[in-house]
Amino acid sequence: MNDRKQSEAVFVIFGSTGDLAKRKLFPSLYNLYLKGSLTEKFAVIGLGRREWDDEKLKTVVREAITEAGQQMDREEQIDSFLAHFSYLSFDVTNKHSYEELKEEMESKEERFHLSGNRVFYMAMAPEFFGQIAQSIHSHGLKETNGWTRLVIEKPFGTDLQTAKVLNNEIREAFAEDEIYRIDHYLGKEMVQNIQVIRFANAMFAPLWNNRHISNIQVTSSEKLGVEGRGGYYEKSGALRDMVQNHILQMVSLLAMDVPLQLTTDEIRSEKIKVLRALRLIDQQNVNDTVVRAQYDEGTINRTEVPGYIQEENVDPNSNTETYVAAKLMIDNHVWAGVPFYIRTGKRMAVKSTKVVVEFKEMPLNLYAKEHKATGPNLLIIHIQPDEGITIVLNGKKIGSADTTPVHLEYRHDSEDRINTPEAYERLLYDCIMGDATNFAHWDEVSLSWSLVDAISNAWKETDQKPLTYKAGTMGPKEADKLLAIDGHSWWPVEHM
Amino acid sequence: MNDRKQSEAVFVIFGSTGDLAKRKLFPSLYNLYLKGSLTEKFAVIGLGRREWDDEKLKTVVREAITEAGQQMDREEQIDSFLAHFSYLSFDVTNKHSYEELKEEMESKEERFHLSGNRVFYMAMAPEFFGQIAQSIHSHGLKETNGWTRLVIEKPFGTDLQTAKVLNNEIREAFAEDEIYRIDHYLGKEMVQNIQVIRFANAMFAPLWNNRHISNIQVTSSEKLGVEGRGGYYEKSGALRDMVQNHILQMVSLLAMDVPLQLTTDEIRSEKIKVLRALRLIDQQNVNDTVVRAQYDEGTINRTEVPGYIQEENVDPNSNTETYVAAKLMIDNHVWAGVPFYIRTGKRMAVKSTKVVVEFKEMPLNLYAKEHKATGPNLLIIHIQPDEGITIVLNGKKIGSADTTPVHLEYRHDSEDRINTPEAYERLLYDCIMGDATNFAHWDEVSLSWSLVDAISNAWKETDQKPLTYKAGTMGPKEADKLLAIDGHSWWPVEHM
Repeated sequence: MNDRKQSEAVFVIFGSTGDLAKRKLFPSLYNLYLKGSLTEKFAVIGLGRREWDDEKLKTVVREAITEAGQQMDREEQIDSFLAHFSYLSFDVTNKHSYEELKEEMESKEERFHLSGNRVFYMAMAPEFFGQIAQSIHSHGLKETNGWTRLVIEKPFGTDLQTAKVLNNEIREAFAEDEIYRIDHYLGKEMVQNIQVIRFANAMFAPLWNNRHISNIQVTSSEKLGVEGRGGYYEKSGALRDMVQNHILQMVSLLAMDVPLQLTTDEIRSEKIKVLRALRLIDQQNVNDTVVRAQYDEGTINRTEVPGYIQEENVDPNSNTETYVAAKLMIDNHVWAGVPFYIRTGKRMAVKSTKVVVEFKEMPLNLYAKEHKATGPNLLIIHIQPDEGITIVLNGKKIGSADTTPVHLEYRHDSEDRINTPEAYERLLYDCIMGDATNFAHWDEVSLSWSLVDAISNAWKETDQKPLTYKAGTMGPKEADKLLAIDGHSWWPVEHM
Repeated sequence: MNDRKQSEAVFVIFGSTGDLAKRKLFPSLYNLYLKGSLTEKFAVIGLGRREWDDEKLKTVVREAITEAGQQMDREEQIDSFLAHFSYLSFDVTNKHSYEELKEEMESKEERFHLSGNRVFYMAMAPEFFGQIAQSIHSHGLKETNGWTRLVIEKPFGTDLQTAKVLNNEIREAFAEDEIYRIDHYLGKEMVQNIQVIRFANAMFAPLWNNRHISNIQVTSSEKLGVEGRGGYYEKSGALRDMVQNHILQMVSLLAMDVPLQLTTDEIRSEKIKVLRALRLIDQQNVNDTVVRAQYDEGTINRTEVPGYIQEENVDPNSNTETYVAAKLMIDNHVWAGVPFYIRTGKRMAVKSTKVVVEFKEMPLNLYAKEHKATGPNLLIIHIQPDEGITIVLNGKKIGSADTTPVHLEYRHDSEDRINTPEAYERLLYDCIMGDATNFAHWDEVSLSWSLVDAISNAWKETDQKPLTYKAGTMGPKEADKLLAIDGHSWWPVEHM
């Protein structure tokens, strides 16, 4: 099937009245349409419990496109884009809904001359994912001449057990290679660049191992708090919300061996090997390797903000962590002895996702010896909000024999940024092209849950309260000690 | 002797009425004075054939300082600086001149309470260097309680033979460690940074050899022509004027092994080993390894300029080269197989001194294989007029699976540049501190002349005319072929 044929599909969006559809999916589909990645041969069927009609959906899509900053001089293009949209009021537990949907799909396929490719996008509450997948199957919605694909948003379960149940349900209806588990970090420009930086540069090839790398630091910090979603967050916490998916995905990309080829299977297989080599964290070592904490009241952008347990819908005795830092060890030949320090949290001093690769210093550095002023070489990958690469070297201090750190910088400029597709745009495109590389394989999901469950269980068993950190800081000082004991420290994520 | 005592000296400047003294030496001495590197305990005795007096010299020095852009609100400091200056009308062939100089030095040493340190700076026509050095010795000008040092400007001879004669004359009067042979490139910030970049960065340590480096390119190009100095240039040419000293010094710094310590002796000894390992160029291989050319008329800065042989005081049948490109091979364990391509010339398209280190590509680059768009990694050292470092990597092309070169940049900003000492200021300071690291040792000079003489003789023997290149270009196309035969090409020196 060529690219053009591939993109001919019906997109069925479960949860089309929701926030994700509005903020991400509609603008992304529109961008793909503008770029010609979607031809005129497609249809979008929005589903939701609400009693909307086609016109209401179109109004919402139009707003979504406008709010996403699309140019207003393209009214005509928006109109022709919207002509592909329709809405069905849908009850996921009612078989008539599926029958109606089948009719609607077939009618659209006829109208737009489509060959039967169908994307089922789960942009809604996770509790129905399994049931919907099975109903799609049992009502014959997969019976088509084209391909059928299921796109699933996080969370994929809340622990290994629930993830397994969900996966089994889905797998009764869809094969593994029909399932696209979204981790939107994998759609980010600079996360995708990790592979390129590593595998397309001869300079790094000999350096990317435990002989030359001292430690790798992955930070994903937010300034925002739980923003009224305390109820949801209480059941999740930073470990499940960020570490299980985004952070472990970045660690896999950083630590994976060079794949044989740049194919989905080869890349995933190398990433899975990293997760399999992760040292287990249990009650014995959890206090030495993981730090969890909740934000206390503090100041963000010169505004006083409440502590986590003062937030709406949060239990005043909550043990839910809003911050996690951990030292992950990868027990394989390449990484033995190299800590991967990760940290993520809400209400931190800066919003930043960054990777810092710290290279080992030389056993004998002439300049360190004689002028005592060298630091380690660093490779910094700026993922968001900045996008770019920095290398920190030691250079000569001007007009002196001493050395000083010099920063070699590359940043996507603002023009690049405008042209940078949103993560969702890429991932939707990959899905219709049948490229699952930047989606999570079940083995990745299950291995991640194993690690996360082990930590979570160890916490329960130790029966300690989370630490606290002041809102607007980079976390509790215990997270510094986690590194200090190895002789390391967190590199600042601002001004680097 | 501590730093303060070291700087207490009489500076005797032979050629104080000349251009070098005015443009470089006086402003540099003044800067050292402003920074306190020179205390009040120093004296400068200007010598020259002209019938100047102290006041005339002081007027010239004041002008020199002002023209060098020194702040005008420091009149008082200039006055107290000038109080250290005096002038003697001097005939280098007349013994009375030396007797007078001796008296003047002793009188200044008494007046400024100096301990007898004496710098003799040869800032004049080279033909008298030997005679002056010997007269300094024979008239007892070296008999002092302090140290005595001889600073010699280039050219140091015009070939190995004349250099040897000169050196022998000088060495009858001064020991090798009292002789400071100026190569002002060694005073440049970014030339001094080459060592730091190489030896203070763990990233480069494993890469700096023939397993990881494909080739190294050293360019020093000028837009200027011979600027009325055709008479001088006719006897020199690009090979003697630039390659024998500056370019070979840069090659030595780039290729030297890591010294045991950062001492003058250890560093020089490693640099000398590089020059000893340079593959000889002779009549057999000169055409395959060296390209010489003269500029023809052309356009520079939108102005028509004449060709070299049309310049004043240039023989219309001149064979003098205004451009040289060469492929140098260093036959040692570290560099076997890695060409060092050098080029220098006048009337070229840009004024630029740059080093480009091109790393080898990987035997299998997944991205090169699948997307055919990777280039080699580069380390670029910008020496002048820009000062900085660039690393070129392959990164992901935004919104595409392809790769694209990304440039990580570090530049001295304009504030840094203002604070960057002139090469001469550093070198004068090094000289009074007794640090000869950034001066050329006799062994370096003689080995450089050996290579240069061999090339020069081979040219004579082949009896060919130099090639020509259009003024305002990067040289003749034959210089491209020099690299093309190895599968390489010159990296552009602009916009890199």
